[in-house]
Amino acid sequence: ISSKLPKHQTSIFSVMGKMARDHGAVNMSQGYPNFETDERLKDLVTKAMKDGYNQYAPLAGIPQLREQIVNKIESLHHKKYDTNKEITVTNGATQALFLAITAFVQQGDEVIVLKPAYDSYEPAIELNGGKPVLVQMKGKNYEVDWNEVKQKISSRTSMIIINTPHNPSGKVFSENDMQELENLLRETNIILLSDEVYEHIIFDETQHHSASAFPALAERAVVCASFGKTFHNTGWKMGYCVAPSELMAEIWKVMEVNVFCVHHPTQRAFAEYLKNPEHYLQLGKFYQEKRDRFLELVKDTAFKAIPAKGTYFQLLDYSSITDEPDVDFSKRLIKQYGLASIPVSVFNKNGLDQKQLRFCFAKTEETLVKAAEILKKIT
Amino acid sequence: ISSKLPKHQTSIFSVMGKMARDHGAVNMSQGYPNFETDERLKDLVTKAMKDGYNQYAPLAGIPQLREQIVNKIESLHHKKYDTNKEITVTNGATQALFLAITAFVQQGDEVIVLKPAYDSYEPAIELNGGKPVLVQMKGKNYEVDWNEVKQKISSRTSMIIINTPHNPSGKVFSENDMQELENLLRETNIILLSDEVYEHIIFDETQHHSASAFPALAERAVVCASFGKTFHNTGWKMGYCVAPSELMAEIWKVMEVNVFCVHHPTQRAFAEYLKNPEHYLQLGKFYQEKRDRFLELVKDTAFKAIPAKGTYFQLLDYSSITDEPDVDFSKRLIKQYGLASIPVSVFNKNGLDQKQLRFCFAKTEETLVKAAEILKKIT
Ligand SMILES: CSCCC(=O)C(=O)O
Ligand SMILES: CSCCC(=O)C(=O)O
Repeated sequence: ISSKLPKHQTSIFSVMGKMARDHGAVNMSQGYPNFETDERLKDLVTKAMKDGYNQYAPLAGIPQLREQIVNKIESLHHKKYDTNKEITVTNGATQALFLAITAFVQQGDEVIVLKPAYDSYEPAIELNGGKPVLVQMKGKNYEVDWNEVKQKISSRTSMIIINTPHNPSGKVFSENDMQELENLLRETNIILLSDEVYEHIIFDETQHHSASAFPALAERAVVCASFGKTFHNTGWKMGYCVAPSELMAEIWKVMEVNVFCVHHPTQRAFAEYLKNPEHYLQLGKFYQEKRDRFLELVKDTAFKAIPAKGTYFQLLDYSSITDEPDVDFSKRLIKQYGLASIPVSVFNKNGLDQKQLRFCFAKTEETLVKAAEILKKIT
Repeated sequence: ISSKLPKHQTSIFSVMGKMARDHGAVNMSQGYPNFETDERLKDLVTKAMKDGYNQYAPLAGIPQLREQIVNKIESLHHKKYDTNKEITVTNGATQALFLAITAFVQQGDEVIVLKPAYDSYEPAIELNGGKPVLVQMKGKNYEVDWNEVKQKISSRTSMIIINTPHNPSGKVFSENDMQELENLLRETNIILLSDEVYEHIIFDETQHHSASAFPALAERAVVCASFGKTFHNTGWKMGYCVAPSELMAEIWKVMEVNVFCVHHPTQRAFAEYLKNPEHYLQLGKFYQEKRDRFLELVKDTAFKAIPAKGTYFQLLDYSSITDEPDVDFSKRLIKQYGLASIPVSVFNKNGLDQKQLRFCFAKTEETLVKAAEILKKIT
């Protein structure tokens, strides 16, 4: 058998997760909370099962949930999507990303990917015979050089992928970033895939600028979102994407043959739960407290932080401790000290190593304190 | 935008389902039960949520569930798969099929598909740049002409897809069919994709012959199965595939970028429920009673049945009533009489129309009686 992804390695999340379990380490690697999702949300899933919503859902998702999604986006970004033609509920945002890439990337196409990038984009592009064209975000603040992006656009470019708030850096794209992108894409046929799974996790005075809010972007954008990240249940594997109807029609063709539809009772639960916007509007504040707490706890260590503006990840710079490669250092941190993080170089172009580790702070106070105690010992 | 599936039409299941709802028809079209899944199984999902299994599951599925799957296959087919390397839990069997096709079908490959066939196979092949090579099963008994299959094998053939028990025909592949297939595939590099989602729904003296039970098949087979079809909860979207570890390693690469993993609490529930084999061993008897009841009810109508040997579908021949195309007739049946079925020609090669409609009898006594009353009126 010949592999379609011959160079593909096991995901860093599986690797570090397993190593963390094997060593009983404090686990701040893969992005998920170690506290519970709302009991009320669980009760809503139970109610949906008891009420008999246990057979196939419609391909695009149940209408009640699609309606709530439309309402949410309209109230936040003043963009009105069509409930019946422009929304699809998916098996997590990962599937939403996959659907868009599979629907629109053809043999020989080029796709611009801003690095560091979530690790599913590139193999998904390659599986479809496309070629990722990588643009590294610059410096420890991860600024996008839009001129460089412009130079990388060719007649074969069919898609550009952005991610804001940005994993792993914690950067949030500014209004100016989005306008630069509008200028680049206007009058092209390039599709924008906008990964906004951390849309509600934003800090300080920062604002999330969704591609949906910029007309020249929205008309060509597939915007992906996650319930798992927002409602603390990554294992329920539910997310969605929105896109103009002509694009969504193509996504549905892939959705139909890929999974047909997703977990019906869970859709009922989210449809009910989303009726109260407080459930997601408070999320920034909730995680800001965790970020602040984590920053305070690590202040007196040899690790240096540039505070994340969004997401539930904090990068820590360890360059004053060692110049070991981050992959080696992160593994040593697990084995020798019992603390698991994610090395950032695996997401960068050409494995660029800026001596940073990513820590997921979607963790209980107890875990954050334990982690900080370990970090204090490392000098 | 240029479509990767330009000729793709909305699935017949979505079309007939919507028409059935719009006309308030008795719905025997899409394959799902209109009675409830076991309350105990719902309670197990609830328990898993309460117990805190709400974050990402491992990519391949939780070990407890993989172990139950291995035990089941070993006890039924005397084939021992490796729990850690040869099992993947998926978003329904549809995703399992998609994963195998995406992992192994490359640009320019040919894939042999026995027709009539479930409608996701061909678009999935085409999405991957492959070419479906169709072999029509012969006559109203849907016999496979293995010589014709042999003639269709070329140096470009990378996969053959079979489905037993067979949807829509209700045929079950005989031991001889499987041996013919072994003879064809031995000493080739062709991968066998075996869709066995109705494995437990078999009638009379019929036996299900899994590809797992035939060594020359098992060593090259991806076998797909469904919990939704087996446990009456198609909307929970859970199934699995098994394959030798070298094949599974490739499937995992696709699984990772496609969805990463599936609904964690539901996996816990099935892991517990599968401990009692009665839950699936009784299924044949349960559905045989429904099939027998439906056959008895339609005995005095103008529709003629060749009893299904497996699956929860019964074909009815309406050639004594009209020679209208089956697509037209099935739509008229909804609009004029309020009864929804599926026309078989949409699954056949070149739309071959044998004047048969497919009725899903996974329905309550009340629904079966109502359907029969309608069928009696049509002469
Ligand atoms: C599906 S595993 C990835 C989880 C995540 O988003 C991350 O850790 O970056
Ligand atoms: C996912 S829709 C298909 C249901 C089914 O298996 C059928 O009706 O044939």
